[in-house]
Amino acid sequence: MKNIVILGATGSIGTQTLDVARRLPDFLRVVGLSAYHNEALLREQAQEFDVPIANLEWGDSADLVRLATLPNADLVVVSVAGAVGTAATIAALEAGKDVALATKEVLVAAGEIVTAAARKSGAKLLTVDSEHSAIFQCLQGQKPEFVSKLWLTASGGPFREWPLERIAAATVAETLNHPTWPAMGRKITVDSATLMNKALEMIEAQWLFDVPIEKVGVVLHPQSIIHSLVELCDGSLLAQLGVPDMRVPIEVALLYPERADFGAAKFDLLAQAKPLTFEAPDETRFPSLSLARRAAEAGGTLPAVMNGANEAAVACFLDGKIAFPEIIGLTERVMDSHRVQPSPTLAQITAGDQWARQTVRQLV
Amino acid sequence: MKNIVILGATGSIGTQTLDVARRLPDFLRVVGLSAYHNEALLREQAQEFDVPIANLEWGDSADLVRLATLPNADLVVVSVAGAVGTAATIAALEAGKDVALATKEVLVAAGEIVTAAARKSGAKLLTVDSEHSAIFQCLQGQKPEFVSKLWLTASGGPFREWPLERIAAATVAETLNHPTWPAMGRKITVDSATLMNKALEMIEAQWLFDVPIEKVGVVLHPQSIIHSLVELCDGSLLAQLGVPDMRVPIEVALLYPERADFGAAKFDLLAQAKPLTFEAPDETRFPSLSLARRAAEAGGTLPAVMNGANEAAVACFLDGKIAFPEIIGLTERVMDSHRVQPSPTLAQITAGDQWARQTVRQLV
Repeated sequence: MKNIVILGATGSIGTQTLDVARRLPDFLRVVGLSAYHNEALLREQAQEFDVPIANLEWGDSADLVRLATLPNADLVVVSVAGAVGTAATIAALEAGKDVALATKEVLVAAGEIVTAAARKSGAKLLTVDSEHSAIFQCLQGQKPEFVSKLWLTASGGPFREWPLERIAAATVAETLNHPTWPAMGRKITVDSATLMNKALEMIEAQWLFDVPIEKVGVVLHPQSIIHSLVELCDGSLLAQLGVPDMRVPIEVALLYPERADFGAAKFDLLAQAKPLTFEAPDETRFPSLSLARRAAEAGGTLPAVMNGANEAAVACFLDGKIAFPEIIGLTERVMDSHRVQPSPTLAQITAGDQWARQTVRQLV
Repeated sequence: MKNIVILGATGSIGTQTLDVARRLPDFLRVVGLSAYHNEALLREQAQEFDVPIANLEWGDSADLVRLATLPNADLVVVSVAGAVGTAATIAALEAGKDVALATKEVLVAAGEIVTAAARKSGAKLLTVDSEHSAIFQCLQGQKPEFVSKLWLTASGGPFREWPLERIAAATVAETLNHPTWPAMGRKITVDSATLMNKALEMIEAQWLFDVPIEKVGVVLHPQSIIHSLVELCDGSLLAQLGVPDMRVPIEVALLYPERADFGAAKFDLLAQAKPLTFEAPDETRFPSLSLARRAAEAGGTLPAVMNGANEAAVACFLDGKIAFPEIIGLTERVMDSHRVQPSPTLAQITAGDQWARQTVRQLV
């Protein structure tokens, strides 16, 4: 039995985590919940599970940190974006709580500090991202020195087959029409269309699995059935497959090292009519992957700047202020004008992130 | 450094094992070799590696058992068919030597005795079959109780898409035209066309991974890139992929728990143009899979009888004495008329096998 706290309980990951917890009462006990906007749903959840809650609109991030370090908590699910998510992640790890991280931005911006906190306390840093969960599952029982490459699969988003000119004129509605993963948030759906989501995941993988960025590859796999792969030194590849269902990576992270059948739809190999395909990503049409490599290689504050600039640019795109290609174009310009701070503190990371967002808004 | 003995050194698996050993001199030292027919090649190999040899044509199986239990041997590769392969496997395991088994018939006929010998001495029983190697690799780090199904992939052979009437008239040349795995022996290529190869592998999997036969499934995958899969209780599937190259399962078995790059062709995900597909096997056109389930459920001498009958029937087919569908037809008739001996001794297994072969010859 594991006692879990969910930060961001009313969002997509939060509600799916509660669904898994409801289905596996012998494995999981909810002991704390937080939310931001949806107070009504949070109060409903608090009543159902009879647990303390925190709503960010009531106070400050101290409430979140208090929840993340509850004495009876074993594991904290972090699906809260921004500085407050990073602070809660670090606080939980420092208190020896395992963390199941759904917010990739936390690792992108503060990977060095977060992984150091986990190493120091011995708490486990687990992932709720489906690609990284796939890699995590494939790596079980494999020695790190045998791993030659981690392959993140990408659906390729709605514009995978579009020529550059057509992508340049993509509307918000076209961008939000994700081909395989339904019901994701708007920001992450835009990131899927630019492949920035995969760029962030490359940096996330670097920190989660302690590999240099050259060992993280991206392959397009439009069916989203193979969730990612691990290539070993002898040419053998291991892959994790399944119906796209975020509850599987949630269950894998929450129960690790156990597993349990919580009633997810099974992938029926015998009835699988859709062929599985792979393609190389076209980095001319999707330049975000090379930005990720550049950010990871430079390190310091640059990944946080890339993430902050992208987030601000996505907001501008959704507001109709910029064209689709400018999301990455602006992000790159902001990165170009940033003076990288090596081994930054959390405050310097936050400052870099804020500066990037402001710079985007000034440029628009 | 592991000291290895190869029984069947001049065959397809034997020569590929020597190729791996040549490429990984820091990991593998050859300390003994045996062959049957090809004395010239065996003498050449013995000179290259400067090791004792045994040729079955010179004497009896005692030579093989002596090699299989050489005091300085750590691991014995068994790629010798028939009773002599079984005797050598058991002798090696009883002497505490790990065994890398390439001859699936050993486990099909004498799985209970062979696995008991491994359990008793604590020696490892490893597999050189590509499908079982895939499953072995996927199972690393997974608890047995989480495994809900082992999925063996099958190319489907040359007649996968042929209607029953056309299969009925298949020639030897058509049967030997395997779509994906080149340079296999004639017998195993015929077994691929009848799917009896997969039927034998189902029983092999049952013993290697200690699962009931209901947990062993077969799925057609004509591209032979995904070598097999493991389905876990939560709906997650793990798979092992790669270019079809028997040297990878050989290397995995010989180096376990290590791995090393021996220069195998890498599967290039980014240049993979061929879609990967799955199909349910049609058990009307390919009845061998249901024979395997029946043999495994009855146990005792029945799997040995199925294997012996099939081998004799394949020989009759290759000699032009029977039509293609009669291979499985005869095998089934022999199984029908066999009185199953439960928990048989090796002598009873051999007797069952001999009886099955004679019965086929009488029926033809």
